Amino acid sequence: MQPVDYIICGDYILTMNEKMDLIRDGAVAVKDTKIVDTDISENIFKKYSSEKIIEGKNRAVLPGLINTHTHAAMVYFRGLADDLPLTEWLEKHIWPAENRWLSPDFVYDATELACLEMLKGGVTTYNDMYFFGDSAAAAAKKIGMRAVLGVGILDFPTASAKTTDEYFENAERFLKNWKGDELITPCIAPHAVYTCSPETLMRSKIMAEKFDLPLHIHLSETEWEVGEIMVRYRRRPVEHLEAIGFLNEGVLAAHCIWLEDNEIELLAKRKVNVSHCMESNLKLASGFAPVVTMLMAGIKVTFGTDGAASNNDLNIMSEMATTAKVHKTLANNPTVLDSKTALTMATRWGAEALGLGGSIGSIEKDKMADLITIDLRKPHLQPIYDIYSQIVYSAMASDVETVMVNGKLIINAGRLVTGDEDEILQKAAEWGGKIATYNSVR
Amino acid sequence: MQPVDYIICGDYILTMNEKMDLIRDGAVAVKDTKIVDTDISENIFKKYSSEKIIEGKNRAVLPGLINTHTHAAMVYFRGLADDLPLTEWLEKHIWPAENRWLSPDFVYDATELACLEMLKGGVTTYNDMYFFGDSAAAAAKKIGMRAVLGVGILDFPTASAKTTDEYFENAERFLKNWKGDELITPCIAPHAVYTCSPETLMRSKIMAEKFDLPLHIHLSETEWEVGEIMVRYRRRPVEHLEAIGFLNEGVLAAHCIWLEDNEIELLAKRKVNVSHCMESNLKLASGFAPVVTMLMAGIKVTFGTDGAASNNDLNIMSEMATTAKVHKTLANNPTVLDSKTALTMATRWGAEALGLGGSIGSIEKDKMADLITIDLRKPHLQPIYDIYSQIVYSAMASDVETVMVNGKLIINAGRLVTGDEDEILQKAAEWGGKIATYNSVR
Repeated sequence: MQPVDYIICGDYILTMNEKMDLIRDGAVAVKDTKIVDTDISENIFKKYSSEKIIEGKNRAVLPGLINTHTHAAMVYFRGLADDLPLTEWLEKHIWPAENRWLSPDFVYDATELACLEMLKGGVTTYNDMYFFGDSAAAAAKKIGMRAVLGVGILDFPTASAKTTDEYFENAERFLKNWKGDELITPCIAPHAVYTCSPETLMRSKIMAEKFDLPLHIHLSETEWEVGEIMVRYRRRPVEHLEAIGFLNEGVLAAHCIWLEDNEIELLAKRKVNVSHCMESNLKLASGFAPVVTMLMAGIKVTFGTDGAASNNDLNIMSEMATTAKVHKTLANNPTVLDSKTALTMATRWGAEALGLGGSIGSIEKDKMADLITIDLRKPHLQPIYDIYSQIVYSAMASDVETVMVNGKLIINAGRLVTGDEDEILQKAAEWGGKIATYNSVR
Repeated sequence: MQPVDYIICGDYILTMNEKMDLIRDGAVAVKDTKIVDTDISENIFKKYSSEKIIEGKNRAVLPGLINTHTHAAMVYFRGLADDLPLTEWLEKHIWPAENRWLSPDFVYDATELACLEMLKGGVTTYNDMYFFGDSAAAAAKKIGMRAVLGVGILDFPTASAKTTDEYFENAERFLKNWKGDELITPCIAPHAVYTCSPETLMRSKIMAEKFDLPLHIHLSETEWEVGEIMVRYRRRPVEHLEAIGFLNEGVLAAHCIWLEDNEIELLAKRKVNVSHCMESNLKLASGFAPVVTMLMAGIKVTFGTDGAASNNDLNIMSEMATTAKVHKTLANNPTVLDSKTALTMATRWGAEALGLGGSIGSIEKDKMADLITIDLRKPHLQPIYDIYSQIVYSAMASDVETVMVNGKLIINAGRLVTGDEDEILQKAAEWGGKIATYNSVR
């Protein structure tokens, strides 16, 4: 009997490996930071012993969900300005709020709230694009969440930097600070083709290659962006990135709504990964991304929530359900984007899109122990005929009961183990009060 | 000091009355089955005393949500057959399952599960179309939920009746049994224009008028239905109903997806109410209902979940969020279907569409006490800038904490007071086991 740190049981273990193995009455053995084994319970208990056994009756065990595009600290602007035209939302509300409030403290506190929300909803890894990366990294690390943190790069000044050079200096300092960290992966995040010159984009790419890091960019989010790039460069956004030599499999492109067929082919050919942000796109009326066409072209489409200011939550369970449903109607075909595909996009493909496919995204021996359990003993989750369907179409973020990241228990019975939930909520309410007061007088 | 049964407090009371009064630091006084008063807490506690005070710190109080179209007992078929073409889903899975399993016991047990799910998600009233109405009514009444129950009428035999006459006899017996009940409102539910002859439709209408009851029908759910009706009657479904004289303000039409502009005008002119079933429509790839156009034409559009076999839940919170978001993109306008409109559709308009606008749907003196509280002390609900936005775009069904129907506490701190949740879940699992076993061998 080999001693392990945890044995996590479940009526269903959804491994989400390539073969999509589903283990009934299964268990996962975890030692240190890693998954040691997974099999039917009987076999696991013959081989391993542990003092910490997480009961599996009426539970499903899944790899942690992955949010491939967010601006986590924007949770503090959740609901600040809704149901408005995009330009008014951005120019009159979000940008002024960011200019007034962004600071290392703001980002630390807000990131804590964002991580808490995501973890409670079963997200174990998120890919961020924002500012003050050291604060974001410190907050994620303290709570114990895995994060790919992209320090935003733009050609105009913000609260975090005044010049393009300063952005790159910030980025380089950040990635030197964090490269090799067990939870934090730094990333280079040139904001978009309309906010970064070709030189800035390629300087980002060279830095990413030098340090072997992913690139994270917004791409073809709005029809306006396409028109703007057409005017500036006489080609569409994806064509532009192809022309300057930016595209490769290290690129994660968020949104990808306004694409022509030849652009989809280019993304597929260059093995670019896509973060689909359905709920944010819908709420801002940005458009419907051609997800089914991208999937058919072989592009790895994954789920992002975008920031909570345009979603208004960081809920991957809900993104799965909404995306799987909406694209059926768009394709006029209820068989597309089935529940297994949706769950693969939220787990294994999410990991692969972030360059972390070797270490997370499925329940397999030697992968890092990023695991969640779902409590199936709920009225909206009974009876059960197909566990994939039940999780994608019926489960809510609040059905997540246990969350483990890197072998460490972070959420137990729905409550945060690694911090004080009430304190995080209290800080959020205090910041919200300050922001609301300022907004009402400005 | 006037003694009352309950004083329910909240940081926010969303009255959802015509003026959309929002009371900060408010309270609602409830005596017997009714709302006696609502005002700021200070004033309520000056006038009323109660032994039962529901604390309001970090809570919002709303009228109960209303689900205007479901087939509640179909929860037992939740996830039985997903990601399939509509005809295969219906003909190879749902109809055979109904033929094999439908019985008074099935409907009673399944309705209990459906009511539990809806109540825990803040739904206090639902409008049902199914069979074995006495069983459905008994289950809803036992758990304490308000229901409008339509006994389905068709021109072909099902488990519940063999002939059209027998359907009408069942309906008449049912409505005589239940008319005047404080929780149950009977309703006449001719299934659809393609399953009911003009004679059957008009016989339903005459019965509804005779007993002063609402009519509940599926209408223009699929493109196939429009084609079929065109072939049979040489007019589109709404034109057909207009021609035979079926349409009036007592009609609640579910789905209403495939409408031409002249049909929208007809529905508006006849004051027909619409139940929009976004998630079911999306999942079955039935199409996008022209909700924004209907709203602009003055039609009262409300929310239905449809049955859980095509949704796959009975979650009005999620219908609100999905609908408000999807229609922004369809309209290419993020200002349409704002959060106040969505919440009005889910409350006051829902009540009005069911002919219950005088008694439920808003928090007003002398209305029935159908109330819910939402716990705002959650990471996805902080900070708060706009309470309507927070509830529509960020809250989940699981944030509902207290549910009162007809002045009686049904859900307290998220748990059922009027029955045994574990027993209901156990029965669901047992039925599910039988159904799955049968399906695997048939």
